[in-house]
Formats: sequence, C-alpha cells, structure tokens
Amino acid sequence: MQLQAVEILRQLATPAQSKMVLLVMDGLGGLPHEKTGLTELETAKTPNLDRLAKENSVGLTTPLIPGVTPGSAPAHLALFGYDAFEYPIGRGVLSAVGIGLDLTPNDVACRVNFATMKDGVIVDRRAGRIPTEEAARLCEALSAVKLPGVELIIRPEMQHRAVIVWRGEGLSDAIADTDPQVTGVPPLPARALAPEAEKMAALVNEFLAQANRILANEPRANTVLLRGFGRLPHIPTLQELYGLRAAVIAAYPMYRGLAKLVGMEERPAGKTFRDQLASLKEAWNEYDYFFLHVKGTDAAGEDGDFDRKVALIEEVDAALPELLELKPDVLVITGDHSTPARMRGHSWHPVPVLLVSPLARRNPWVNGFGESEAAKGALGHIRSQELMGLMLAHAGRLKKYGA
Amino acid sequence: MQLQAVEILRQLATPAQSKMVLLVMDGLGGLPHEKTGLTELETAKTPNLDRLAKENSVGLTTPLIPGVTPGSAPAHLALFGYDAFEYPIGRGVLSAVGIGLDLTPNDVACRVNFATMKDGVIVDRRAGRIPTEEAARLCEALSAVKLPGVELIIRPEMQHRAVIVWRGEGLSDAIADTDPQVTGVPPLPARALAPEAEKMAALVNEFLAQANRILANEPRANTVLLRGFGRLPHIPTLQELYGLRAAVIAAYPMYRGLAKLVGMEERPAGKTFRDQLASLKEAWNEYDYFFLHVKGTDAAGEDGDFDRKVALIEEVDAALPELLELKPDVLVITGDHSTPARMRGHSWHPVPVLLVSPLARRNPWVNGFGESEAAKGALGHIRSQELMGLMLAHAGRLKKYGA
Repeated sequence: MQLQAVEILRQLATPAQSKMVLLVMDGLGGLPHEKTGLTELETAKTPNLDRLAKENSVGLTTPLIPGVTPGSAPAHLALFGYDAFEYPIGRGVLSAVGIGLDLTPNDVACRVNFATMKDGVIVDRRAGRIPTEEAARLCEALSAVKLPGVELIIRPEMQHRAVIVWRGEGLSDAIADTDPQVTGVPPLPARALAPEAEKMAALVNEFLAQANRILANEPRANTVLLRGFGRLPHIPTLQELYGLRAAVIAAYPMYRGLAKLVGMEERPAGKTFRDQLASLKEAWNEYDYFFLHVKGTDAAGEDGDFDRKVALIEEVDAALPELLELKPDVLVITGDHSTPARMRGHSWHPVPVLLVSPLARRNPWVNGFGESEAAKGALGHIRSQELMGLMLAHAGRLKKYGA
Repeated sequence: MQLQAVEILRQLATPAQSKMVLLVMDGLGGLPHEKTGLTELETAKTPNLDRLAKENSVGLTTPLIPGVTPGSAPAHLALFGYDAFEYPIGRGVLSAVGIGLDLTPNDVACRVNFATMKDGVIVDRRAGRIPTEEAARLCEALSAVKLPGVELIIRPEMQHRAVIVWRGEGLSDAIADTDPQVTGVPPLPARALAPEAEKMAALVNEFLAQANRILANEPRANTVLLRGFGRLPHIPTLQELYGLRAAVIAAYPMYRGLAKLVGMEERPAGKTFRDQLASLKEAWNEYDYFFLHVKGTDAAGEDGDFDRKVALIEEVDAALPELLELKPDVLVITGDHSTPARMRGHSWHPVPVLLVSPLARRNPWVNGFGESEAAKGALGHIRSQELMGLMLAHAGRLKKYGA
C-alpha cells in the first residue's frame, strides 16, 4: 500500500514555482515531566510555534507503524515520503555517504567505533569519546592494513566514530556486528550471515588482527568495533519521483548522507540553527525542497536532559521569524520520532507535526504546539510517510487523480 | 501491509520482565440511548475507568476495516495482533478447540445446533435452548451414527450447541451450512462448495438421515442444523511470534478455543469477573500476556438489554482496583467490536479503547471512558490489530527498527 502511494504521487507530480521546507527537530516528541505533566515541547516557551499552530494545521505522526521505535534512518526516509521498510540502510552506508565518500554499488561500508580493550575485554565502547582529530590520526595509521584484492578507505566521522569502505571483487555485506554492545566481554569475531560471505568474514577478521597490532600502544583507542555492514540501496531520488530539486542543510554527517541518498544536494550548515537559516536564505532560489535538520533535541533527549531539550526547542522557535520571512509555500515542522528525556532514547510515541501553508486547514481551537494540542489538531493522526503527499499538494505540485 | 506489520514486530520482539493484560468486554461499544443521548458505557457509573482514562491514553479502534461488522473470531484475532483476513476460522473449529478437542490438520469440524422440526420445517432453530446436560445426552445418542471410513467425535458445547469432528481420509470442509437461518422452511441438505467435496457432502447427508432417525422421538431437539465447516488454520502463536507466554481466562468455550489457537494456555475462569481476577492473580508469575474475556456485555447487547449491559460494565469497573493492584506494565481495556443494545447485534462502530501504562501519553482533557470522549483521546483512531504493537512497545518488548 505504501509503495503504491509513492507510485501514485509520482504519477501526479507536476512542476510548480513553489518552495517547501521540512524542518526536523530530531527526537522532538516527548513524555510529560513527572512534576508538571508537560512534555519538553509543551514546557518550552515557543510563541512563534504556538501562533503558527493556531493559524495552521497540527497533528500527530506515527513514524513507521504503531509501537515501533525507529532508528534515525528509517524515520527520515518516512519523512521524505518513502516506505522505510522497503529500503533498509546499514549504518555504515549512511556514515560513508554522510562524509562525502562516493560509494559504488559493489562497495561494502561499515561503521567503526574506536574502543578501549583491557586484558582482552572491552572496557569502553567509545574509547572515552576521543576527539575527531585523534580518530583522524588513527584512521591514517589503519591505512597500513593490507588485505589481498581489497582497497580500504578508512575515514573519521565524529569523535570515536569512523567508516570503512571495502572495495573489491566478491565482497559481501552479510557480516554480523563485531560490537558486543556491552562492556566486560571480548569483541565478537566477524561472522558470515550467509554462506557466500565466508570469504568476507575471513577478510574482516584479518583486518581486525592487523588493526589490533597497529593500535596496540594507543592509550585509549586500542581496538575497533565494526557494525552496520551494508551496501548502497537503490532509492529513487526526489528528483526522479517528483522532479524536485532538493537540498539538505544538516550539521551531522549521517543526516546529510541519508538526504544525499534520496538525491538532495548538500548546503553548508554552519554551527547553529541561525547559520542553517543563513544557508537556507542563500540557497533559496536554487531549490524546491529544503530539509533542515536540528540534532541537538535528540541528543538532549538521549542524555535524559529535559531542560536542554527545552532550551534547544526555544532556540529554534526564536529564530523562526527569519525562516518565515522567506515565505515558504509549505513549511512542515516536526520530529523524525520521539526521544523523551524520561526514556533516554528513541521511542514509538507519535510526534507533533505542524503544517504551515496558506492552503492549510486551520485549527484555531488549538492552544499552541505540543503533544496534547497536536492530538486535537486538524491534521489528525497520520503516518510520517504521508507528509510528502501533503507537502506536494500544498505546494501545488500534484495534479488531480482521475477525471 | 498488515501481514508485513506482524513480520516486523516479530523481528523486533525482545524478551522483558513485564506483564501485559488485555481485558476485553465483548461487544463493549454501543450507540446512544434515545432518551439520554448516552451509550451503555457512557451511562454506566465507572469511576475507575474514568480516572484511568484521564490519566492515560484513550482512543477508538476499528476492528477490521471501516464499515465491516466482525464476528467474534476475527475481532479477537485482530486484538491479538493478527490480520484476521489471513486466517478465516470456521465456527466449528473454534468450538472444537474451545471444548478441548485436539484437532489434527486433516480433521474437519462443524458446529451443531439442536433444533425443532415439525412437518418437515424448522420451527425453533435452538430447540428451546435445551440445557447443556440434555445436549450431552443427545450427543451420546448420536454417536450411534455409522459412516464408512469416518470417525465422528460429537460433543456438547453450551445449551443447544454442540460440535462434530469428522476424522478420516479424503474429507473436505467445503460444505455449505445446512442451517437455513430462518424458521418455517426445511433444513438445507449438505451441499459441496467445491468438486472435491462431493464425497463429504454425501457423508454429511447420510449423517443427517441417521441423526433424524435417532432423534425422531425427542420432544424438542428432534433434528440438527450444521454450520461452520472448517479445518484448523495454521496460525503462528504469540510464543512463536513474540516469545510471549500467554494465558486466557475466559468462561466461554469459543474464546478459550480461539486463544488456544494462537498459543495461549487456559487458566480457570470461574463464574464471575472477580473469579477471573482471582485466577489472574494466581497465574500472574507464570505468564507475560493475559487475555481476560467478559462475555456478558455482548450477550446483553444482543438481547437489546441496555440496562443489563450497563450493569455488567459497572460490575467490571467495581472490580478493577483488584486488577490494578497487580501493577501490570500495560493494561488495555476495550471490546472486540460494538454490540449496541439498540441494534441487538454486532456492529461496525469503532470501539473505545483504554491503554494504561506509565509510558502512555496522557489526555487529561478527556472526561471519562466512553465513545465520545474516546474520540478525543491521545491514541486517536487506530485498528484493533495495531494494539499488539503498542502493547509490546509499552511493555519494553520491541527493539528499535534500523539505525
């Protein structure tokens, strides 16, 4: 059904002179604070969002299906209008694309975590979150690893995170993670998940052996954990589907990577949300669709820091007038999923969504933008995937279906 | 999509130390009383349900698809998380499993109604609702029927209802009901619904001829009507899908039968709702998921007895504190479908649902538990089938999907 929806939108797509903005505050949805009964978004002082909510449409989105907590990649694919279950994407591919590595269809990518091992067991899965520069030096050192018939591209991402691209003939991505996910145990050996992956498993284990020798004298990052082996999926781009020139303005590599997979071009994000808005302004005439990603809200939620999440939402709200000055034809403000500070992680709870457009139905009875008010809004409860059709429609980019 | 949803939940399922309770008041949903404008549930004094509704999430469920009135079996399959359209279950199979008959995959089961025939036409399709003991005696008598190559297992169910299991080679369940559904006409002969069922149809007609001779002198139950021919479907169990140890506490055979088909173990139900709660308490440590079934609400609705339905809902409400003392991690209270007293039968109307969990979003603006308030609740409108994902999520039993 969901694939069919994409196909129907594709058939109906028509060009228009209109601008669409998708502003994602990662992990926006929350749960009530035990003392006040208000969520992070409801606690934040957001005069701009509140006014927009009253004068436009709000609702709640279920990212994938009820009860399912999404990772960032499927949650964003859904926001971009895709059936996330059709396009499983390995973390390695996301990271590789995010830092600008051009993957070919045969390449296998995996995510690397530098870690600390002592007496054969992992004692810190993140090597004390070493700075990115240190990871860069270590990636350089690991380039000395030699494997028969395989070219390795090893690049730092952020802090203790890095990426390896495995290039060569007969490789496979059917390799289980070597990250045991807990400390106090040895790293797992690479294990083939399919018979044809045995050769690859042997290569990965040889890599690990050489890597451990190279890193042996490092004080913190003396080993690596590998996970998320995968290949580039073929996803039709937003250009192919709807004729959209789309841009991503996101500080975090993974989100840029994901956006580029669906055909978005990368524009600078700077350091702050105001930097992102400045970049948006500069790119305004060149694109039809803009994806702005704010990471801090999710990170605060994952840290269990209710107040920091509130402050970050307020920061976005305060800068909104700058965005509104551009007069987008459609502006959607939402999250990819919920990350309630109370749960210190992603959750399945529906996410408030705000659809701003001169053509949006209005819900003047709604008192501001928050989970509770969104439950009463004019948009009702929808799936994240359905937002793309609504955005295209409000932007005048869909023809009528049938006579 | 709905089958895919089950598969996704299956992949994400993970063990946890948590308890889930599904409390079904059969036929809970209703329609407004013509004088008061309030439904049965809205009329009932339910201080416990009202408080729980305010402090947790309420919503409405559509049992199958909008407009479709479900039978009890598909409605419950949906509540257990299955795509009911994938697993059509004959009434005979349900009854057989419900009274503890072990069916093999080749067995055919059908439901028997003892009936009263006069001058060749049916005058009472329920034989005056003869007591179960009388039906037991008649089943005994019918065991004298001899058919070539077929073993017959004939057992009473409740009142005028009984079950026949047909065991042998080359049998078929493609047999039309012999129950004409109205009085004043003769019973229908057994008719094959597929060419390969001709032999079976002949066997059934031979059975009917012998049965009529055996019952000829009975004052009330002098014939039988057969319906719901079917075979055991293969339904993956809740244990296979989600690793759940599940228990059913239900007084009516059919509901126990259905629950056992999806892998639930039977625990005693006693006579009253308080008996069921006592049984729940006793079984508490042995299972992860409990299905409690209250039949009276549906029966009252089918009898058009608004007040009795109200009273039964009040009885459940009054006993709820006992259930809450067990502190289930997730408690869902709902119906399988609506049975408005005004309609004297099942209907398609959405059913109020209450999801109680420390992780549930709250809807403090909701004034009690009823159809109208549920329409404004934080859960919105969902499908019954989607409840399973929500229950598993709130019970901490689903991993994240994707990176």
